[in-house]
Amino acid sequence: MAENAKRPFDVLNGALNKNVLIKLKGDTEVRGELASFDVHMNLVIENGEELHNGEHKRKLGTVLLRGDTVVYVSPA
Amino acid sequence: MAENAKRPFDVLNGALNKNVLIKLKGDTEVRGELASFDVHMNLVIENGEELHNGEHKRKLGTVLLRGDTVVYVSPA
Amino acid sequence: MAENAKRPFDVLNGALNKNVLIKLKGDTEVRGELASFDVHMNLVIENGEELHNGEHKRKLGTVLLRGDTVVYVSPA
Amino acid sequence: MAENAKRPFDVLNGALNKNVLIKLKGDTEVRGELASFDVHMNLVIENGEELHNGEHKRKLGTVLLRGDTVVYVSPA
Amino acid sequence: MAENAKRPFDVLNGALNKNVLIKLKGDTEVRGELASFDVHMNLVIENGEELHNGEHKRKLGTVLLRGDTVVYVSPA
Amino acid sequence: MAENAKRPFDVLNGALNKNVLIKLKGDTEVRGELASFDVHMNLVIENGEELHNGEHKRKLGTVLLRGDTVVYVSPA
Amino acid sequence: MAENAKRPFDVLNGALNKNVLIKLKGDTEVRGELASFDVHMNLVIENGEELHNGEHKRKLGTVLLRGDTVVYVSPA
Repeated sequence: MAENAKRPFDVLNGALNKNVLIKLKGDTEVRGELASFDVHMNLVIENGEELHNGEHKRKLGTVLLRGDTVVYVSPA
Repeated sequence: MAENAKRPFDVLNGALNKNVLIKLKGDTEVRGELASFDVHMNLVIENGEELHNGEHKRKLGTVLLRGDTVVYVSPA
Repeated sequence: MAENAKRPFDVLNGALNKNVLIKLKGDTEVRGELASFDVHMNLVIENGEELHNGEHKRKLGTVLLRGDTVVYVSPA
Repeated sequence: MAENAKRPFDVLNGALNKNVLIKLKGDTEVRGELASFDVHMNLVIENGEELHNGEHKRKLGTVLLRGDTVVYVSPA
Repeated sequence: MAENAKRPFDVLNGALNKNVLIKLKGDTEVRGELASFDVHMNLVIENGEELHNGEHKRKLGTVLLRGDTVVYVSPA
Repeated sequence: MAENAKRPFDVLNGALNKNVLIKLKGDTEVRGELASFDVHMNLVIENGEELHNGEHKRKLGTVLLRGDTVVYVSPA
Repeated sequence: MAENAKRPFDVLNGALNKNVLIKLKGDTEVRGELASFDVHMNLVIENGEELHNGEHKRKLGTVLLRGDTVVYVSPA
């Protein structure tokens, strides 16, 4: 398969220790600093907060997000 | 399996650095420039915006979309 | 496993460059010319239009449909 | 694993060129003649019609059904 | 992995040619005689009937149920 | 991957022939004695009963639960 | 694939024998002490309680949570 030189996971590498917005399946969102990720797109967020419909729902602190629930990750 | 010479991912190669519309599972859509993709159909969009029912919901800037949430990708 | 000589993907080979109707999970349908496919049932449609409940929703032009969202493909 | 001599896919072999009723995920049904199948339970139906809640919705003619959307297949 | 000597699929072996109740994802149930099964839990039922909310919906006769739609199988 | 010495499936080994509560996807629950399990988390329950919203719905006797529908298993 | 030195599962290692909040698909949450986990993110919780919409629903004691139903795990 022909692929371009820049790869999708480069976005995660570039976002380490920076703020990201993560949309999960089922209308949950999490904001916080990206501390770690793996090839399954499992993500660790520090100083995370959970949002529903754009409004604060809960402070999460450190949270491990399972990769197969991720819709998108957007650096702030 | 008999396959034709032109392959589906050629559409993504041809759309690099151009505007695309991406429909995701669960009625979310993202528009922006296709910056990168991989064999799982993970996609990176630059200057992205999120749409619901065809209306602007949010500016995303750079966003990594997980391949298994993609329904379709259409070059503008 | 006993299988018959004619294989399901032969339908896709026979439909290349012809009009097809594709039903996707979640009540979205796409009509257009089948330009390309692969073993995952990823499909490229040219001159595509998106339909909901049988009514025109949007002109798509070229569109790459992800195979795992396909319910059926029917040559016109 | 202990298995019995007769295998589930024998039902598909025995139903080739005969009428079958196929229930798909999401309350769609298709009736028609089974023309072909593979190990993924991808099915080709000839002279097919689509039904919703037991009522005729649409004539499909030839249709390729993706295996992972199949709930059951019942020979007429 | 430590496992006990009796295996889950032994229940299917013991139920061959006997009546079983099968619950499928999406509130569909099928009753009938278990004629065959494989490692994917694909099941063939003879003299089957389909039930919704415990009430008879339709006579199915012979039916091949796709394993990944099964919730449970209970011998009568 | 670093793992701890005690493994999740040890809970199932320790619960053999004892009462367990099993929550399945889609708000169905089953109670009964755990008779058998395998690496896919397929479970056999003896003297099982099905519950909806905590209320008795149906006596099941012996029942084979497909692993991929399990949310959790809790020994009584 | 470029990965950072700290891995997502390190969060689980660091949380062993401590309180965690686990969000599952379908709006169920479980709180309790993380006793064990494996590479599939199957988790064992001790002194667990089930919550719905943040309110106590049921005491679970020991509970094995299937990994593919996990949305996130957050150490308290």
